[in-house]
Amino acid sequence: MDESSTTKRLVDGEHCDSLPIDDRGLAYGDGVFETVLVAAGQPVWWTEHLARLRHGAARLGIEAPADARWDADAAKLIEANRSPSPSVLKLILTRGSGGRGYSPQTAVMPRRIAQLGPAPVIDSRWRRDGICLRLCDLRLSIQPRLAGIKHLNRLEQVLARAEWNDAEIAEGVLLDIEGNVVCATAANLFIVRDGRVLTPSIENCGVAGVCRAHLLRVTSASVETASVNDMLAADELFVCSSVRGILPVVALGDHRWSIGPVTRHCMALLANTSPAFADHAH
Amino acid sequence: MDESSTTKRLVDGEHCDSLPIDDRGLAYGDGVFETVLVAAGQPVWWTEHLARLRHGAARLGIEAPADARWDADAAKLIEANRSPSPSVLKLILTRGSGGRGYSPQTAVMPRRIAQLGPAPVIDSRWRRDGICLRLCDLRLSIQPRLAGIKHLNRLEQVLARAEWNDAEIAEGVLLDIEGNVVCATAANLFIVRDGRVLTPSIENCGVAGVCRAHLLRVTSASVETASVNDMLAADELFVCSSVRGILPVVALGDHRWSIGPVTRHCMALLANTSPAFADHAH
Repeated sequence: MDESSTTKRLVDGEHCDSLPIDDRGLAYGDGVFETVLVAAGQPVWWTEHLARLRHGAARLGIEAPADARWDADAAKLIEANRSPSPSVLKLILTRGSGGRGYSPQTAVMPRRIAQLGPAPVIDSRWRRDGICLRLCDLRLSIQPRLAGIKHLNRLEQVLARAEWNDAEIAEGVLLDIEGNVVCATAANLFIVRDGRVLTPSIENCGVAGVCRAHLLRVTSASVETASVNDMLAADELFVCSSVRGILPVVALGDHRWSIGPVTRHCMALLANTSPAFADHAH
Repeated sequence: MDESSTTKRLVDGEHCDSLPIDDRGLAYGDGVFETVLVAAGQPVWWTEHLARLRHGAARLGIEAPADARWDADAAKLIEANRSPSPSVLKLILTRGSGGRGYSPQTAVMPRRIAQLGPAPVIDSRWRRDGICLRLCDLRLSIQPRLAGIKHLNRLEQVLARAEWNDAEIAEGVLLDIEGNVVCATAANLFIVRDGRVLTPSIENCGVAGVCRAHLLRVTSASVETASVNDMLAADELFVCSSVRGILPVVALGDHRWSIGPVTRHCMALLANTSPAFADHAH
């Protein structure tokens, strides 16, 4: 497919590869985003992604566009880029242009950005054989006003992800400044112990992942505080995201796990949601 | 002056009003910025602003361009927009385009943005009669890895500044989540008490202001932890920024202050630095 001949990016519904310099998304990270897996021409968990985007925008006081606008953007991009392989649709909503300084009152028109790109390459062994994690040095700050929102202020994740450049390490575990386990850099974390399934709270920091929310709905998993020791004492460990699905964890530093029955059960639940999550090779 | 006929914005030194959608400044707030007062055609504290930008970029692992590039940008913009009134030169350095996900390793070329705009309108009474502050509800999170840096992750400041829309209130005081006084939304804070001058630490959060650093150099002010009670018990209080200079504080909630001799002395020191800080009307 010729990159230049197809529409990959829309700004307010029109083909456009650039953004005005005075957009507050650039100036302050003043906006929210979603990354949506598109498999067999269908955005996976589309309703849930749009709901989270609306909810995050509301918490920041940004007026979200009608879902029908995003529907139209998605349809236009997917239609123009038919592909047998999965892709990722990234939505960004910024508060728009304007305002001198931080006050958001003068920014009148939120800006809608949609772009389609290839899905991240997942090593085919990761789902089958599990992944290795590292424990990141960076500690997440505690900010209940922003916690859970998939907003554009992501320097903590950038710094954490910059800690390693070893292709054998797929993800990094993030603790908050109090030492609680929170999540991975671009995924949520689930801990299986003594037959119970739990995922850390994202009330203080972290992102309320769409895949995490799905698993909380369709399993008996609960939200609990977890220490590093809780994580290391786990019977099974896995990370999940709406783009990569579930990746079983088999190593963190010197600790080793095998892929257990709860993880396999959750992976099967996801494969029922979309065949993309059953495909080892994408 | 006709807005459209002059060059107000440069991207990598070339006239350009827009930014590629895939810039990491938009995606993650992955960059740093400076706002520089330009008075009588001269950027004020230019060397200090460039040094802070370089230092912030280094802490984020972004390679800063040679100062000569920014010099050329500034000269080009100021020459094209000669004006008797002060203006503000905003510099943004992003990690550039690229990268799938948070990893910064794939972004190869930082992007340099410079734009010139009018200086913020300062109510002529503010310097003469002092300003009113509010105590913001939002508490700053504690993140030593980002503290001090003027980075593009500024949602906390946006949310704090959104707390009021009363033109009589010029600034808001920000506490950290532990209750320590840190700064204002777009300025640093100085407290005068019993003949001593202090400004809160920015080791945990807040921005290392260029005007703050200047005052720490040219006065006997010290950096100390300050509680709300320390602030309210102050003999004098003022905020400062490199764009607005010093603004004396005369009210915070029910508390009232008059403009005292230490504040006037510091204002006189600033007026020696640039006539822009002596001009009540700009």
